Amino acid sequence: MISLEELQLAARNHGMPLESLRHELTPPGLHYLLVHYDIPVVDPAAWRLTVRGERELELSLDDLLAREPVTMPVTMECAGNGRARLEPRPISQPWLSEAVGTAEWTGVLLAPLLAEAGVGPDAVEVVFTGLDRGVEGGVVQDYERSLSMADALRDDVLLAYAMGGEPLLPQHGFPLRLLVPGWYGMTSVKWLTRIAATNEPFTGYQMTHGYRLRASEHDPGTPVTRMEPRSLMVPPGIPDFLTRRRFVEPGRVELEGRAWSGWGEVTEVDVSVDGGSSWSAAQLGAAPGPAAWRPWSFVWDAVPGDHELCVRAHDETGRSQPVEPPWNVGGYANNAVQRVAVTVA
Amino acid sequence: MISLEELQLAARNHGMPLESLRHELTPPGLHYLLVHYDIPVVDPAAWRLTVRGERELELSLDDLLAREPVTMPVTMECAGNGRARLEPRPISQPWLSEAVGTAEWTGVLLAPLLAEAGVGPDAVEVVFTGLDRGVEGGVVQDYERSLSMADALRDDVLLAYAMGGEPLLPQHGFPLRLLVPGWYGMTSVKWLTRIAATNEPFTGYQMTHGYRLRASEHDPGTPVTRMEPRSLMVPPGIPDFLTRRRFVEPGRVELEGRAWSGWGEVTEVDVSVDGGSSWSAAQLGAAPGPAAWRPWSFVWDAVPGDHELCVRAHDETGRSQPVEPPWNVGGYANNAVQRVAVTVA
Repeated sequence: MISLEELQLAARNHGMPLESLRHELTPPGLHYLLVHYDIPVVDPAAWRLTVRGERELELSLDDLLAREPVTMPVTMECAGNGRARLEPRPISQPWLSEAVGTAEWTGVLLAPLLAEAGVGPDAVEVVFTGLDRGVEGGVVQDYERSLSMADALRDDVLLAYAMGGEPLLPQHGFPLRLLVPGWYGMTSVKWLTRIAATNEPFTGYQMTHGYRLRASEHDPGTPVTRMEPRSLMVPPGIPDFLTRRRFVEPGRVELEGRAWSGWGEVTEVDVSVDGGSSWSAAQLGAAPGPAAWRPWSFVWDAVPGDHELCVRAHDETGRSQPVEPPWNVGGYANNAVQRVAVTVA
Repeated sequence: MISLEELQLAARNHGMPLESLRHELTPPGLHYLLVHYDIPVVDPAAWRLTVRGERELELSLDDLLAREPVTMPVTMECAGNGRARLEPRPISQPWLSEAVGTAEWTGVLLAPLLAEAGVGPDAVEVVFTGLDRGVEGGVVQDYERSLSMADALRDDVLLAYAMGGEPLLPQHGFPLRLLVPGWYGMTSVKWLTRIAATNEPFTGYQMTHGYRLRASEHDPGTPVTRMEPRSLMVPPGIPDFLTRRRFVEPGRVELEGRAWSGWGEVTEVDVSVDGGSSWSAAQLGAAPGPAAWRPWSFVWDAVPGDHELCVRAHDETGRSQPVEPPWNVGGYANNAVQRVAVTVA
């Protein structure tokens, strides 16, 4: 079913084991990771960040560390999460449902830096360039993404140099990455080396080919931006090694998990213990911050037999998770409800 | 080709991206990880280690931290590394070649603790029990492995509470794991809770069913123990996102990588730039410790065209890597030579 090429990606990149949903902040090494090309090795003493507006700033890591730090907990999810559950399956990193994590990120706000560089009235976008370089769709490229000027000037967009109070790990963008709360991870460019205002929309591969919701190969599609609502549960009981089916003893089982949406606050989480035939509201807890997941819990009176547990989040904008996967060419943003097979005995 | 069940495992567990071979010590989160069941959440204040010999010791984490610490760099590899390259493919975690990592582990020696607990003359093995629990091959079990008394009393077998100078991450066995240098990772039981000397060979699932080299389903086989020699290279140049094919500019290319064997020192590493038709010796560097990988380098004069780079390690015991994968039912210890497809242009 899955090709060798997809497996090569799955062996490099990794999701967050779902039992790690127990942690409000994902421990190092358990946060999901997607690297398009190779993880660069960066000498922090030699590294510089260029910020180009009407002027050009050149900043060392020490320059950034000397600025006012901002720390925020942010839930980040890969835009391709759920891809491997689509039919037909788009061929890329074959995520099931675990490409997510939450960390406390520390860095400096982007907007004041852009103001210092001077953004002219004609500037429409800001382009972010990473040090990771490779070939994709036949195009040799540095990994690059852009944001509209309005998005770039948001008061919560960060240039992050720390994760969980520690310098970024190499695989998470050391020494500096962009962090755009609420958006899928592809926009939070890692190993940042250049930020440049531009007077024309940026047409790089990752904007015009990758990360677009397209109904067919000929559809130009629309950009992938914010995270669709999703809830995941800690699979209860104990697993079978190979099938991951869960085994639970009869009686009171406290189901728990976390839910998020990049569009607004999660306002409701529903649980089904009968494969989606009926739904009941879970108890919601407080998120550690406006851009981080919300915990939920639900008491299940488990009776002997085979069951399929499901969970579904709704947000304040009225968005919720579909029962059937929403197909598109690139396999992005599949936020269909999670299903967990459980045997109670 | 790969089933959904194998993909579920590949999305949870992860290898070390091969460019991370640049690091002598693998950064946190990049060391390979295989978890049979779920990662337990352990309260370190409540956690105790029981050591049972003729007496029973009960040790807190503080008790262990108060003992003489020992630190050593150790290369650890999953016994299933290379499994997904076997034909027919044994169904389990589908590793390609990246299930490895090297860390500085700190802990206390096992042998003095066994001496304190008192190991009687009839004791033949020591059984190690983890807190991870699940179902495997139809058997409900705690993860358990044993060592012969001779192996358990080796002067380099550690109970490790730190990795890279930091407390173990949850996924690497917090608060304590066994560490048996030179052996495949399955024996270095994580989330250790009980150590018990026994007068009879232990017949648990992971000794008698899992981790045996078997020619057929009816062959009882032999135990998987030490790591076979293997060398891996940092794939040169830049990758294609999907195929991972490498693109390199013509001219002088310094190939580099690391090689290890659990049986003895790596004494030779050979590189082939023509798919294995001819081999040349690489330059070997010094290992950071007796149980850790050795760096190597090789200068390649890359000429335009498609090439297949290979690398092969030999150790002081005369063991070396085969060109053809060595098949067995469980898909263990496939140390066939690495092959890297490169286009020079």
